[in-house]
Amino acid sequence: MCEANAYLLSDGGETLIMESVDDVIPEGDGLKLVNIFGEQKFVRAAIHSLSLVDHKVFLKDLER
Amino acid sequence: MCEANAYLLSDGGETLIMESVDDVIPEGDGLKLVNIFGEQKFVRAAIHSLSLVDHKVFLKDLER
Repeated sequence: MCEANAYLLSDGGETLIMESVDDVIPEGDGLKLVNIFGEQKFVRAAIHSLSLVDHKVFLKDLER
Repeated sequence: MCEANAYLLSDGGETLIMESVDDVIPEGDGLKLVNIFGEQKFVRAAIHSLSLVDHKVFLKDLER
């Protein structure tokens, strides 16, 4: 399986916000994250960067 | 390996622009894509959405 962990970037580093993410879909003023178990989470963020071999998706907060 | 293929979204659908992408990094007014072979490509685009289990990264053109 090629899911990844989603991290929110901040001044202090990166905060894990969801593991085993499959889909990341724009929705309203943010993103809907869906993991491989079908769980969903909405975040007011955009996709910043990817490091797929490391299974990492980095998001940036839209409220900064 | 958990690389993905990068597609540019357009009105006509999606166009494959790079296979086996590992890193996607913001650079200047676009993105630098790096594949697992170390090849690099710059695109004037942003990351639109992800479908990681399907190994797909969707980019949106910034010039539209």
